[in-house]
Amino acid sequence: MSTETARIEAFSDGVFAIAITLLILEIKIPMPGSIPLSLQLLRQWPSYVAFLISFAFIGIMWINHHRLFTHIRRADNTLLVLNLLLLLGVTAVPFPTAVLAAHLGKPEQKTAAMVFSGTYFFIAIFFNMLWRYAASRNGHLLSSEVNLNSALHISRQYAVGPLLYLICFGLAMVSVMASLAMNLALAAFFALPPKYAAGRPRAGDMAGVR
Amino acid sequence: MSTETARIEAFSDGVFAIAITLLILEIKIPMPGSIPLSLQLLRQWPSYVAFLISFAFIGIMWINHHRLFTHIRRADNTLLVLNLLLLLGVTAVPFPTAVLAAHLGKPEQKTAAMVFSGTYFFIAIFFNMLWRYAASRNGHLLSSEVNLNSALHISRQYAVGPLLYLICFGLAMVSVMASLAMNLALAAFFALPPKYAAGRPRAGDMAGVR
Amino acid sequence: MSTETARIEAFSDGVFAIAITLLILEIKIPMPGSIPLSLQLLRQWPSYVAFLISFAFIGIMWINHHRLFTHIRRADNTLLVLNLLLLLGVTAVPFPTAVLAAHLGKPEQKTAAMVFSGTYFFIAIFFNMLWRYAASRNGHLLSSEVNLNSALHISRQYAVGPLLYLICFGLAMVSVMASLAMNLALAAFFALPPKYAAGRPRAGDMAGVR
Amino acid sequence: MSTETARIEAFSDGVFAIAITLLILEIKIPMPGSIPLSLQLLRQWPSYVAFLISFAFIGIMWINHHRLFTHIRRADNTLLVLNLLLLLGVTAVPFPTAVLAAHLGKPEQKTAAMVFSGTYFFIAIFFNMLWRYAASRNGHLLSSEVNLNSALHISRQYAVGPLLYLICFGLAMVSVMASLAMNLALAAFFALPPKYAAGRPRAGDMAGVR
Repeated sequence: MSTETARIEAFSDGVFAIAITLLILEIKIPMPGSIPLSLQLLRQWPSYVAFLISFAFIGIMWINHHRLFTHIRRADNTLLVLNLLLLLGVTAVPFPTAVLAAHLGKPEQKTAAMVFSGTYFFIAIFFNMLWRYAASRNGHLLSSEVNLNSALHISRQYAVGPLLYLICFGLAMVSVMASLAMNLALAAFFALPPKYAAGRPRAGDMAGVR
Repeated sequence: MSTETARIEAFSDGVFAIAITLLILEIKIPMPGSIPLSLQLLRQWPSYVAFLISFAFIGIMWINHHRLFTHIRRADNTLLVLNLLLLLGVTAVPFPTAVLAAHLGKPEQKTAAMVFSGTYFFIAIFFNMLWRYAASRNGHLLSSEVNLNSALHISRQYAVGPLLYLICFGLAMVSVMASLAMNLALAAFFALPPKYAAGRPRAGDMAGVR
Repeated sequence: MSTETARIEAFSDGVFAIAITLLILEIKIPMPGSIPLSLQLLRQWPSYVAFLISFAFIGIMWINHHRLFTHIRRADNTLLVLNLLLLLGVTAVPFPTAVLAAHLGKPEQKTAAMVFSGTYFFIAIFFNMLWRYAASRNGHLLSSEVNLNSALHISRQYAVGPLLYLICFGLAMVSVMASLAMNLALAAFFALPPKYAAGRPRAGDMAGVR
Repeated sequence: MSTETARIEAFSDGVFAIAITLLILEIKIPMPGSIPLSLQLLRQWPSYVAFLISFAFIGIMWINHHRLFTHIRRADNTLLVLNLLLLLGVTAVPFPTAVLAAHLGKPEQKTAAMVFSGTYFFIAIFFNMLWRYAASRNGHLLSSEVNLNSALHISRQYAVGPLLYLICFGLAMVSVMASLAMNLALAAFFALPPKYAAGRPRAGDMAGVR
């Protein structure tokens, strides 16, 4: 954490922390009534699935943000704006999550799953914009000690993100479960350190980073 | 970030982060029913507009707060109180936003737009008070290494804020859309680094800062 | 901010920031209907009063917490627990505030004002416990460079807090408005730096601090 | 707080701070009506009990997290994921708390108490996983200056956690009050510094830590 990026990271940490903590508020509290409590709790399974998926996703986005900012050491006005764009995506997550939870297993679950995957498609684009800007012009915002290989691994892992989420989006029209399964697989893919997730960089890739 | 202002910045970051993340809670989750989900989602467009505008505004206020505190290095009791006054405006933002979202395109949208612009008028005044106090008495709370030109640019950019938001407020009585458009233009103006937003400082301006 | 107390301050800043930002959620959004929007907005004045009072109170508690921790440099398990007790009071504030907002100007406003003042009575006690513990045993948790006069001023200002809030509590049974006015006066008293709020320390007071 | 773990701690502080502050939102605001306000306030006692218990629990979990990270100085990808797993448990706490508050003193309070204790059983496991991973392979993520005795005390105190919470869970089927009392006793046990809570380490324990 450099002095220059400290407040960007602190503000972003706050946003991630709040977004991930608010998710629990979407789960309805079962009230005393004619239906047994245990049954009421079980019937809410789509809410738990949506909560767990969104928690994992926001958590993994935080890990990725953290990873980027171990490389990024300088900040300018454009970086502040691109970081806000990414946080816009992060704060929006509770909405598609709640839409999915309300419609999973119901007639219109396909529309809900498309809203859900669509959100992550945009977030994947925003992650790419933030990283590519920081790494542009010979890595002008990166630490001078940055490991070139590590930066390249990130670039390559991120490059495929938007396309893969677009496939998720299309898959939702065919099968909601297949789309959600692919969403989870993608989350695992982006949770992995880039050196395992991306293949070995080739010489020609170097130009893309610095 | 100096040791003396570190906690003011951390507390303010927390307030900005929460205010910007709570905005999503104002968007209603469409429930399964007789109206198709896609239609329900589309009909909520005023909520999305209000969400995006408020997100942009709080984000840009954070950028400005961040910018001020790269110059401010010392803190006293008055600065703490003026910063709280500014944060009062920031935490209030979700209310006029929700009022606007509830009335946009409805008969009383003018009143809603006036409440909305009025809030930013007060915030613009609070920003001026904070900055002018810190820069007063020969910049007594500013870093000794502060760039005089940069400080002057901020003073000049901020000086016009309250008047411009007052025009926005008046414009809402005539045309809601014109008022909102001017609001967005002002947001872009304050997102810009001061050196581009304000004209070139003249010699006579110097007295205003230190 | 010392390394040892950095996380206590960061965690406390988070709690203060969230408590102060959540207050706006207590204000109801007027919906389109038969009553004009401007009238609906005006009729909600007790909500605005409650919001402003609570914002000022939480803000001033933050200033006081900040002030204490410019003196406190060491932390032990007891300090962590006493700080949590104080934060318990801070997080509780939105509840008595909402009770007051719901009943101000209604038949049971006296009960509501008693709940409101009672909360601050307990918070005043918790502030005293935290500070007295840190300053006990010859100021064992205070910075070695701590200004003795400044520490004494805090001790004397805080010592009268619980009694004054108890009077506020009793006053609510007689007159709600008098009690709220005294609440506001107390807020201003605790916002002041201790050297102005407390009288000049006498020699005999020294024993109380270190 | 080391540079490497600073953002993990900042993010975790944010999550703990929000989770502990959101608890108050679960308490219903009594509205003016036919039942006297004082009676309405008294009848809500299960909400206050649930609020106080959850506040104490999240506060004590924060103290424990803080304690672990005075020992942990290095971070890797697995630690990030294990920390997220622990935070998953922390953010979930408002839900079982609200379920307990809604059903305490009602026919299905046993089910509610089981949900409540069950949550803490999982959190106890997550705490063990985080700590055991950091302390594994000769304490590869611990500070080189870590006090071995102190680390051992933590290991021993945590080792009994899951079993004790499992007993709480079973006890809820017999007596809700006994289960809640044991929950409170466990909270006190984990609030204590490990050297008082755990017995004296024996020579054979050393292998478990480094």
